[in-house]
Amino acid sequence: MDFESKVSDLAKGIKSSIIRELLKYASEPGFISFGGGVPDPETFPRKELAEIAREVVEKEYRFALQYGTTEGDPLLKAQYIKYLERWEGLKDLKEKNLLITVGSQQALDLIGRTFLDSESIIAISQPAYLGAVSAFKMRNPRFLTIPLSDDGMETEILEKKLRSLTAAELKKFKFVYTVPNFHNPAGVTLTLERRKHLLELAERYDFFVVEDDPYGALRFEGEHIPSVFKLGGMDRVVLLNTFSKVLSPGLRIGLVIAHESVISKLVKVKQGVDLCSPSLTQRIAARYMERYDMLERLRKTLAIYREKKDVMMKAFEEHLSDLDAHWTRPKGGLFSWVVLPEGFDTLEMLELGKEYKILWIPGAAFHVDGSGQNTMRVSFCLPSKEEIEEGVRRIRKVVEAYKSSKVISR
Amino acid sequence: MDFESKVSDLAKGIKSSIIRELLKYASEPGFISFGGGVPDPETFPRKELAEIAREVVEKEYRFALQYGTTEGDPLLKAQYIKYLERWEGLKDLKEKNLLITVGSQQALDLIGRTFLDSESIIAISQPAYLGAVSAFKMRNPRFLTIPLSDDGMETEILEKKLRSLTAAELKKFKFVYTVPNFHNPAGVTLTLERRKHLLELAERYDFFVVEDDPYGALRFEGEHIPSVFKLGGMDRVVLLNTFSKVLSPGLRIGLVIAHESVISKLVKVKQGVDLCSPSLTQRIAARYMERYDMLERLRKTLAIYREKKDVMMKAFEEHLSDLDAHWTRPKGGLFSWVVLPEGFDTLEMLELGKEYKILWIPGAAFHVDGSGQNTMRVSFCLPSKEEIEEGVRRIRKVVEAYKSSKVISR
Repeated sequence: MDFESKVSDLAKGIKSSIIRELLKYASEPGFISFGGGVPDPETFPRKELAEIAREVVEKEYRFALQYGTTEGDPLLKAQYIKYLERWEGLKDLKEKNLLITVGSQQALDLIGRTFLDSESIIAISQPAYLGAVSAFKMRNPRFLTIPLSDDGMETEILEKKLRSLTAAELKKFKFVYTVPNFHNPAGVTLTLERRKHLLELAERYDFFVVEDDPYGALRFEGEHIPSVFKLGGMDRVVLLNTFSKVLSPGLRIGLVIAHESVISKLVKVKQGVDLCSPSLTQRIAARYMERYDMLERLRKTLAIYREKKDVMMKAFEEHLSDLDAHWTRPKGGLFSWVVLPEGFDTLEMLELGKEYKILWIPGAAFHVDGSGQNTMRVSFCLPSKEEIEEGVRRIRKVVEAYKSSKVISR
Repeated sequence: MDFESKVSDLAKGIKSSIIRELLKYASEPGFISFGGGVPDPETFPRKELAEIAREVVEKEYRFALQYGTTEGDPLLKAQYIKYLERWEGLKDLKEKNLLITVGSQQALDLIGRTFLDSESIIAISQPAYLGAVSAFKMRNPRFLTIPLSDDGMETEILEKKLRSLTAAELKKFKFVYTVPNFHNPAGVTLTLERRKHLLELAERYDFFVVEDDPYGALRFEGEHIPSVFKLGGMDRVVLLNTFSKVLSPGLRIGLVIAHESVISKLVKVKQGVDLCSPSLTQRIAARYMERYDMLERLRKTLAIYREKKDVMMKAFEEHLSDLDAHWTRPKGGLFSWVVLPEGFDTLEMLELGKEYKILWIPGAAFHVDGSGQNTMRVSFCLPSKEEIEEGVRRIRKVVEAYKSSKVISR
């Protein structure tokens, strides 16, 4: 039969992820990929996790192989509460303030379904994390897009946009979504001042903040800045965390830390979504946290990321600085963001990228309104230092080839 | 802040699952629970899975601890295609015809989002599987409810209801959802004749069938009936399977087997829902299937389920047959369904159930329209044979106590 004729409006509206498509060809030999935001598998503590996996299945099978609660493994929650206290200085968190999800992507989807209708309005940065946009778009809200500077989301512009909303619109305004640390895709970090300003606005205009923090623990330079959650508390902030960048993405464990009234609403939606997350992966993570210091073990990885970032910055300086291009200088995380002069189209340039065997993610993918043609996301975590140097050299070659094919006048 | 004021219409419409709430108190000592549809953890092949888990993490960490594709582990798909060929006689299935989900609950949710709008119409049995109803309800469709007999969904009534739809309504009619084998909650099986009739109707009225088959492999009596998918093919049928009842629910692995045009649509939605399922659990299942015959190993469990079912049937005969009650006689699966005389309310009776320390699931929970007050779902898979006998005795006591409290006149 013609299944097409049966498809919902929601599904009709979804485009396939460009990143997924791009990453497929980047695995060809000789290719250098600045594309994916995935950790180096050699950094996973595989021996420790292997032993824990065996033990958990054999000894805790009554839990680990059985259905769990929708809320998640209480042991993992207990470990994570300790972790948040130590790392973020968060006190008085209880089990009921945590929900364990299938990666933070599921948390974003649950938040979308729990809080958004097609009438709703939310604010996101531009560029914004693609996964969040996909999740929220399924609820069809209106987006206010707020530009980013090196200091993160420009809260002054957010304020202006909020001020221009009517009372009726403000009532439909639900939340601001922010990736405060080492932003995906832009690599920038929201300053303390702007975090405070964001919370002031939340109070004044009565909305909440969805703080998505997958990269906060990946700081390799500078001082830790208190989370928006720490500054604003659970009455104003819903915090999302994940194990994907600090332990292993293959476990697919995300967490929501929030007021119990938020958690209970998300739980009701999650019941219909997947009943519960896998018990096995949750218990493995719990036992790992019990035995090892997750962040201590991350230090070596972060030192490597920092070196790689430095190599990339130096290569940009060398190969792009005469171009009127600029780029962000991340103090953590996985990404830098390159802005080429107007007239370049990094999506169109991918054809040349294929030829020169270099991949980046075109920045337009991170723009709700499809702008940002001259931008690109580049990740430095996975390629070797040599590959980073060579990759930036190839980007320069692509730029030249594109210029001569397009006769870009500058 | 008042998060309540920010909640979506979707989330407002969700009630918490009564089963979840009920199962909480059933863990008290002395309680006998006919409630959950969960396998006995002692039947899980924990030694084999423990060894495989260790190996997979240690040797296949590059896959098992890393992000996977949204579609799922190709190795697991390859194993499952062999399994379907052997078990269901399904030929010519390709990798692109399979999607791996987080339990079949996620498959139901993805199907709801991919095919249903608030205008849509679907048909389900009454009673129906609660999880499917929750997933579909989030899309707010109109339900046609079709009664069940001992031969499964009454397709004659489905036909009548379809005939009464206008052309405009028929255009919005998307699919029939059915649990053909050992129905949850009713325990009945759709006969071959009715499967064929259902497919005739699907052709005539141009809809598809969602065949949810978590229990098909749990037959302990009688002959295997070809699946609706086998009879109708992927042009008319979307088949859902799961590892929850045949290997372990804690892995949370479900599968969709369907036409590639359906799979590709579901994949696009799943991208926004959780990016991908856990790689670790998928690879563990794949290696398990490679080394062991999952169904061969299930035989002992099924022999036990059969004995338990027989004990329950005998106890019903002994304790309920003078009551004008009736119940289904399942040939597989986990559940029987008891219909008490009119006037009984099995939800109200739960208070007495608590007193007598016996739990069932009130049948009204499985009725979209809230009817079915005099029905209950009882599971025989988890309690011991002695507990089953004693549990049915307690149900009789509750019936008596309820009768005298209510002065039900019969």
